[in-house]
Amino acid sequence: MTTLPAGGGAAALLAACRLVSTDPEERARASVDRSGYVPGGVPDGIVYAESVDDVVEALRLATRYRVPIVPRGAGTGLAGGSSATAGNVVLDVSRMNRILSIDPVEQQAVVQPGVLNAEVNAAASRHGLFYAPDPASTAICSIGGNVATNAGGMWCAKYGVTRESVLSLQAVLADGRILTTGRNTIKGVSGYDLNALLIGSEGTLGVVVEATLRLRPKPLRTATVAAYFADAAAAAQAASAIIAARVQPAILEFIDGGTLAAVDAMMGTGHAIRGNAFLLAQTDGYGALLEQQVLVEAITPFALSIEQTDDDARAAELVAARRNAIPALQLLGRVSIGDIGVPRKRLAEAVAGLAEISARTGVKIFVIAHAADGNLHPMVVVGHDESITEGPAKAALGEMFHLARRLGGTLTGEHGIGVLKQDWLKEEVGGLSLELQHKIKAAFDPLGILNPGKGI
Amino acid sequence: MTTLPAGGGAAALLAACRLVSTDPEERARASVDRSGYVPGGVPDGIVYAESVDDVVEALRLATRYRVPIVPRGAGTGLAGGSSATAGNVVLDVSRMNRILSIDPVEQQAVVQPGVLNAEVNAAASRHGLFYAPDPASTAICSIGGNVATNAGGMWCAKYGVTRESVLSLQAVLADGRILTTGRNTIKGVSGYDLNALLIGSEGTLGVVVEATLRLRPKPLRTATVAAYFADAAAAAQAASAIIAARVQPAILEFIDGGTLAAVDAMMGTGHAIRGNAFLLAQTDGYGALLEQQVLVEAITPFALSIEQTDDDARAAELVAARRNAIPALQLLGRVSIGDIGVPRKRLAEAVAGLAEISARTGVKIFVIAHAADGNLHPMVVVGHDESITEGPAKAALGEMFHLARRLGGTLTGEHGIGVLKQDWLKEEVGGLSLELQHKIKAAFDPLGILNPGKGI
Repeated sequence: MTTLPAGGGAAALLAACRLVSTDPEERARASVDRSGYVPGGVPDGIVYAESVDDVVEALRLATRYRVPIVPRGAGTGLAGGSSATAGNVVLDVSRMNRILSIDPVEQQAVVQPGVLNAEVNAAASRHGLFYAPDPASTAICSIGGNVATNAGGMWCAKYGVTRESVLSLQAVLADGRILTTGRNTIKGVSGYDLNALLIGSEGTLGVVVEATLRLRPKPLRTATVAAYFADAAAAAQAASAIIAARVQPAILEFIDGGTLAAVDAMMGTGHAIRGNAFLLAQTDGYGALLEQQVLVEAITPFALSIEQTDDDARAAELVAARRNAIPALQLLGRVSIGDIGVPRKRLAEAVAGLAEISARTGVKIFVIAHAADGNLHPMVVVGHDESITEGPAKAALGEMFHLARRLGGTLTGEHGIGVLKQDWLKEEVGGLSLELQHKIKAAFDPLGILNPGKGI
Repeated sequence: MTTLPAGGGAAALLAACRLVSTDPEERARASVDRSGYVPGGVPDGIVYAESVDDVVEALRLATRYRVPIVPRGAGTGLAGGSSATAGNVVLDVSRMNRILSIDPVEQQAVVQPGVLNAEVNAAASRHGLFYAPDPASTAICSIGGNVATNAGGMWCAKYGVTRESVLSLQAVLADGRILTTGRNTIKGVSGYDLNALLIGSEGTLGVVVEATLRLRPKPLRTATVAAYFADAAAAAQAASAIIAARVQPAILEFIDGGTLAAVDAMMGTGHAIRGNAFLLAQTDGYGALLEQQVLVEAITPFALSIEQTDDDARAAELVAARRNAIPALQLLGRVSIGDIGVPRKRLAEAVAGLAEISARTGVKIFVIAHAADGNLHPMVVVGHDESITEGPAKAALGEMFHLARRLGGTLTGEHGIGVLKQDWLKEEVGGLSLELQHKIKAAFDPLGILNPGKGI
């Protein structure tokens, strides 16, 4: 096997693959995800895979020619995990976008990686089922990327993250061999859990080409509560009171006043006038209404006003406020999306700590959070022409991480490390863990073909 | 570093450790678990660890002297995973049996590996909380072993297995270094999921010395249903009808007629007279009674009789029938405990297939199952002086595995591979997966010190 000089390998790979592009505009688009991170160049080209065979072929060639491959789905990542630069070839699986089968009796779906999250839910819905992991980006993010980041979302409060809803994967390794992980059964302990290992590995161990997803019965009933508070501290106290009341909300979302105003501006809604912080809670199942009452009692001492509804349309409007929070902030400037996690009881401290960081650094920080999981998204917003990877925005990101660590938490709850958070990974997981992770990476991908420089 | 001859290393290690035993009776006891598997020898000795330091010291010495170490907790494994033979030293952590802390607000417990599963639940219960993974052996099995096998249990139907309830681990690697995996938050995606990798690795990657467990609020209310059927097929159809009715039982257990009779004989109960197959179902939460009604409607067409109760004492009696099934069968003879998993909708086919294997081979097979997960425990019972690892019992185990595979299932749902099921592991997971698993093993334990020949 000949090792070609850098660049030459990419050209040889692109010449040999079936569907490729070297169009400058397409390469520029494929160089970034939705994190706001801009690498210092564009990839040499894009391979469009329409089948497992296409992925196998591209990776065999990548191994032969030693070409760094950046797997890409919908490109909606929030940590730069699918960003690509000079010397890279992007392997775009977004055209592998078919739902291969749905088994309503077993409550499973088999899908290709380019299927959008919302499409899975639309298809499941026709059988009275749903797919639980629901990132805010559900309408535009694809299952392959959800797997790569172990994506979360609102319903995770009750139903777990992507790991808890992916039963089995097919992934192509860097050398083109096809690995199957997991199984079609709910439980199973034959051998190491390579399925969980692939989930969240940010495209560094294999390229997911098929996923068997666990679907769940749609709850019989949903009850929704929207509560407005005088300030973030009161809302955080209310969230803690919900946990302490031993109810299990299916959704428990926190939005701060600044974000509410941004959402109002984009959507024409009137949330911000009702309070300077907002909690959206849903209970579901056979006891939804009863559970809602307990939840409302728990938060009443802290709230300015509380709206209860079991009307689906009104509930959808309230949920939309949360789903549109990130796009609304992105209208205000370039956004660096934090993703820290803290123990749930420390939510109020985290919100206060973020306000303190904002006051001290002068950087504007908006906060939304999956409150039941202690997963906060502090959003640093800078001017459209300012950098989020240098200067104050980067410094604020580092401060947020140290805040999360001081509170016993984590750098990233559901978005991944990508390129944006690598500076702090070792501090969180420790040198020994990172050493083992690199050995695992070497076992799967000894040449370092897959998404080099990302994740670990 | 000097490599000592086999035997000499173990002697040197035992001479250097603080608390050891070479008593023949203790060695004999430490050579077996509860699987019925009897290895052809006994370990050279036992090191009793009372602290993390003791574990570190033992493993450093094991690495220095190249001594194969078999980690051991309560010794209740069902696949021979903690069996030990000549040349091995057993590292017994059962004395590390303290609950280090419980945080009722965050709903977490930090425990040592030797703490019994039931002790965690007793302590959690004082705060209105529970620990979800509940193997039938809850009264006698310890958390370290639960982690090693990714143990399941009855409540897994609704609350997931051990993996979903272990947030973080401390484990000592073969060379004595201490690895921390996971985190104290509900969610987190910083780096590869080494926490899930350790869970279910059967003591081959590290020795767990501390676990941070996720506790959950005890359900407000529980409703219990006991249903009796004319035969196993009717009960299996009823179980499928429950899944199809889109209720989520917290418990859904199947027991066949032969096992019911064995339980009656041990407990003095009168189940078998009421039917030749039994389903135990519990719903819980705010909607427990409503959900119970839907469940009862779903199974009514299939049942001979149905008993409903929300009385805790009566519910505990019914649950006891399931918890005592394995001990009751062990009074009849030596038991080989199968643990196959199938897609849930194929439960009836699995039960029929097991009857066919029994009829064809003449081997007596009893069946209990976690029906909501498709996880069956076919129990081969032979005479007290017959082997379960050779002859008809072994052949039946192989046939069960092939039955599970034909139905799209797995060799082991929750007990692990141990030594008993290694013959079929590769057939299930494939050569490539197994190759990667061995590379991971080599990354963690290059000298093959930890539990050699077990699991993968």
